[in-house]
Amino acid sequence: MKYSQTFIPTLREEPGDAVIASHRLMFRAGMIRKLSNGLFTYLPLGLRCFRKVEAIIREEMNAAGSLEVKPPVVVPGELWKESGRWESMGEGMLRVKNRLGGDFVVSPTAEEAFTALVRDELSSYRQLPILLYQINTKYRDEIRPRYGVMRGREFVMKDAYSYHDSEESLDEHYRAQGAAYRRIFKRCGLTVLSVKADSGSMGGSGSEEFMVESEVGDNTLLLCANGDYAANVEKAECRRDDAPPRKAAEGSPGPAPLETIDTPNVKTIGELCAFLKARPGDFVKTLIYRAVNVELDLSTAPGCGDLPRRKTSPGAPETYPEAFFAAAIRGDLEVNEVKLAAALKASEISLAADADVVRLTGAPVGFAGPVGLNTLPIVLDQTVTAMDDAVTGALEKDKHHRHAAYGRDFGGWMIADIRTVKAGDRCPLCGGELYEKKGNELGHIFKLGRKYTASMGVSYLDENGKTRVPLMGSYGIGLDRTLASIIEEHHDENGVIWPLSVAPWQVIIIPIKYQGAVREAADGLAAELEAAGLEVLLDDRDERPGVKFNDADLLGIPWRVVAGDKNLAAAVPAVEVKRRSEKEARLTPLAAAAGEIAAAVRGELAALTAG
Amino acid sequence: MKYSQTFIPTLREEPGDAVIASHRLMFRAGMIRKLSNGLFTYLPLGLRCFRKVEAIIREEMNAAGSLEVKPPVVVPGELWKESGRWESMGEGMLRVKNRLGGDFVVSPTAEEAFTALVRDELSSYRQLPILLYQINTKYRDEIRPRYGVMRGREFVMKDAYSYHDSEESLDEHYRAQGAAYRRIFKRCGLTVLSVKADSGSMGGSGSEEFMVESEVGDNTLLLCANGDYAANVEKAECRRDDAPPRKAAEGSPGPAPLETIDTPNVKTIGELCAFLKARPGDFVKTLIYRAVNVELDLSTAPGCGDLPRRKTSPGAPETYPEAFFAAAIRGDLEVNEVKLAAALKASEISLAADADVVRLTGAPVGFAGPVGLNTLPIVLDQTVTAMDDAVTGALEKDKHHRHAAYGRDFGGWMIADIRTVKAGDRCPLCGGELYEKKGNELGHIFKLGRKYTASMGVSYLDENGKTRVPLMGSYGIGLDRTLASIIEEHHDENGVIWPLSVAPWQVIIIPIKYQGAVREAADGLAAELEAAGLEVLLDDRDERPGVKFNDADLLGIPWRVVAGDKNLAAAVPAVEVKRRSEKEARLTPLAAAAGEIAAAVRGELAALTAG
Repeated sequence: MKYSQTFIPTLREEPGDAVIASHRLMFRAGMIRKLSNGLFTYLPLGLRCFRKVEAIIREEMNAAGSLEVKPPVVVPGELWKESGRWESMGEGMLRVKNRLGGDFVVSPTAEEAFTALVRDELSSYRQLPILLYQINTKYRDEIRPRYGVMRGREFVMKDAYSYHDSEESLDEHYRAQGAAYRRIFKRCGLTVLSVKADSGSMGGSGSEEFMVESEVGDNTLLLCANGDYAANVEKAECRRDDAPPRKAAEGSPGPAPLETIDTPNVKTIGELCAFLKARPGDFVKTLIYRAVNVELDLSTAPGCGDLPRRKTSPGAPETYPEAFFAAAIRGDLEVNEVKLAAALKASEISLAADADVVRLTGAPVGFAGPVGLNTLPIVLDQTVTAMDDAVTGALEKDKHHRHAAYGRDFGGWMIADIRTVKAGDRCPLCGGELYEKKGNELGHIFKLGRKYTASMGVSYLDENGKTRVPLMGSYGIGLDRTLASIIEEHHDENGVIWPLSVAPWQVIIIPIKYQGAVREAADGLAAELEAAGLEVLLDDRDERPGVKFNDADLLGIPWRVVAGDKNLAAAVPAVEVKRRSEKEARLTPLAAAAGEIAAAVRGELAALTAG
Repeated sequence: MKYSQTFIPTLREEPGDAVIASHRLMFRAGMIRKLSNGLFTYLPLGLRCFRKVEAIIREEMNAAGSLEVKPPVVVPGELWKESGRWESMGEGMLRVKNRLGGDFVVSPTAEEAFTALVRDELSSYRQLPILLYQINTKYRDEIRPRYGVMRGREFVMKDAYSYHDSEESLDEHYRAQGAAYRRIFKRCGLTVLSVKADSGSMGGSGSEEFMVESEVGDNTLLLCANGDYAANVEKAECRRDDAPPRKAAEGSPGPAPLETIDTPNVKTIGELCAFLKARPGDFVKTLIYRAVNVELDLSTAPGCGDLPRRKTSPGAPETYPEAFFAAAIRGDLEVNEVKLAAALKASEISLAADADVVRLTGAPVGFAGPVGLNTLPIVLDQTVTAMDDAVTGALEKDKHHRHAAYGRDFGGWMIADIRTVKAGDRCPLCGGELYEKKGNELGHIFKLGRKYTASMGVSYLDENGKTRVPLMGSYGIGLDRTLASIIEEHHDENGVIWPLSVAPWQVIIIPIKYQGAVREAADGLAAELEAAGLEVLLDDRDERPGVKFNDADLLGIPWRVVAGDKNLAAAVPAVEVKRRSEKEARLTPLAAAAGEIAAAVRGELAALTAG
């Protein structure tokens, strides 16, 4: 293709709001333009790269046995009401009323649409598994879209959904998707961390995220220095680091009895530590939470006997629209609200309002504690179960207990791991030190179990003629993010350095002046390379060589060939060949250039695709 | 591909609401499923065909020099306010408020988004022409979606936009697009009528529609029996068929003077004819219309001197939000409201309310006429200018004029062709008889002039450094409709008969029983055909042959090969080869089958692509 026939508006200046390299370079190289906050137009150059990422994903999905379909982007709100997510998805979901007053959604994801399709088509176990995917427009109404297409409002996602008659079958496709993701990212030249993740509002059990490291990442990851563990902080676990129980120390006196002490004018945990000459790890910190749509059975939980339950949809499990919980954790640790919500099977969780704390604990905020607290269920972090001499709030203003012992003075309704793991904690697998990284999620795979298939009433007859509800998985990759992440990983100060697999063109030919013998050589070389199956951009513009070189670097085309009078007039006519990633060009005989480049390109593409 | 690895839920029964063949067959063949009214999911089979249509369109757009880009589907309402279409697009445009209260639109078309892009990038005439297109999701909030994907709410459109510095340049790309459309439809195996069209709410001057005949078509087309003229009724013209003026008849007395007569209790034109012993063609029928957003200058028009004007956007021309007009036409003809709106440059037009008629004509509905009517501008159809002895309303209850003569007794503020042409009228080019057809629009190309570029403030510097506003064209094709229309044209009572260019697979192989020698032969043949570059579906299901044959017919795969024990055991092992369009299969030696089919497929594809 000739440069003059494309539309690549490169720019010297950078967009004022561009913080990260991909945003800056996609804008400067003329790959994208901003139409509005979080809404971008891909220009021809950007779209060429986008389509290459799309093609790689499509190939790997097809290879994994998934079949492509195309549901609408705008879907009826009814489906979201059936699954219960009309309420739980929050304001990030773009809702529309049509002219007839019907509720619609601009799809942020498509569990509902696929499950509705499968519900109508599935009757027998013989049809399972059903493996489907789409590559389609999605919308999330981000309040603060930023970093260009890395966190836009509209984006394209590959989302796959699978339906199974057994855990084994679900496992198998879950693994196949994971393997496909690894190949996709490898082919795109991306270094991706695969981490354990919380399945969040998607529901379900197992889940794995594919992350790229990024200083502006949305996610905090915990990684083991020994390389055997990686998890999103939302889900990360660590080895227990309990102090040995005092009673266990040989010859030490047994734990002292519970004692109530006055702690006037002591507001913060720091002041309390100073006042009691204790360390934060000696406290049981107790927080009151309000949880929404709790799926756990609370009928026998303290204070919950009369709580109303409801079904948000006919097939959905009964849930409690609102319930309060106390979460108790060792004082030097933080409660991880995502883990707590998961433990409670709640769709949402937040600290209770002050008035609720007063009503439930009988004391102002700051004096909650597990001893004698029977107005609501207590969730104990597992660290608390090792504490036999703790300080806790005494459910009374300016009062605390000390020498509180788990099992003797207090218990919990549930014991769970609700601790926020942080850098310096110990790997749950090997005990190595964990460190933190920021990451951006490119892909996410979920075992959803029967969350959607049950709530939306999907069933089939098994081989014994019994009605069963299928298991389900879902598997997403953000295309825009993947593309931007490739640039994050492959660029220098002059521009992008595309991996061959996603380069807009594989070779750029720059004639110093597009005329005479130079033009002839450039045209000939382009024809030769194209005949060999390569994609070539020929810079036929009437610009100074410096401008052409700068644009070539900015665009990031992997191979550059410069054709000039002097080298072409030599005894052996030659051109300068340079890889974008290298500093120096080398002279190559014109007659050999196309063959050499084609062979190198083929070899490199094969290496990216291998394995 | 093996049938057992696809997902093609074929059905015996038909959807209850399916009226046309494509809807019925797309549903029965498992190409689509309905998610909601006007919202469809393409299943794997349907999507394969859809992607083929898409690829043909993309190839032809690229060949026409247009560059693919990808703007968002959801775009800011601001852009539509700038162009003035936020108001004029009506309720068919799906509007959304986001969580921050901003107005957004789920794109029904993208003149605004492309023009906003070009506005930011265009500075010099050297950049022109700019030729861009997208293939992307569109939404129109149809009140009554029907006929499956033929008239859905969400659909995919190829829409191209071009920007030019001269009429010649616009003409050239307009012709290139028209030529590309003809190639696209030919390659898809479609018989398409190209007709002159009104440019409707798109604005602008020239426009051509590409129509397929359909008994449920939205459009009425007028075609000349001699084949030299085709137009949408909205725009159709015809040869004048005026009666000769009476005064011209030699020896006849001159026209009688205007006379007012009582016409008590005469309500309809039929009663009036009987009462006056006249034919409908002797009347001047006068209707009062209310027009919205009139762009014509009415400052000197009767009754319009004080009408308020306004700009709907900074760059837009001033328009009259509301104005009333009388339209007078020969009594045997009907006013064409689209043509009238175009003549008035109004965005919308409708019959005035009774109260407005009384206020403006001084008489009840039924007594309007051009004689003495000076409270509003009169638009005379050109047929009226030949009338010298007409009956008209007298602007008074139960009164009519007779012997009214154009020029002597009345005139008009504007003379225009506002007549609805109908079957039996005469071709404007050759005088041949026009006939009517119903048609569905697949594509539409427009010369838009400066409507959007002016209202949205696009400009560039010409070679003399002068600021100029570019000309614009827009060019759309509906993909879903194109696909459905292919089925309309290519099917029989048993199913689809795909043209090779858009067939989901080119060959289906049916082993009578997928085992032993038959399986071996089927596998071998599939491998051979695939090695030759053909797409093959191998029906490996454990179904009765009848079921497989019926499904093959329903799916419409162009070539069918049946492998059975008997023929394979013959001295020369053979298979049965049949084209979907033919009744009889013929025995072909197994060894020759792949070669013969591949050659035939290649030849046919080349024929579809040629020219």
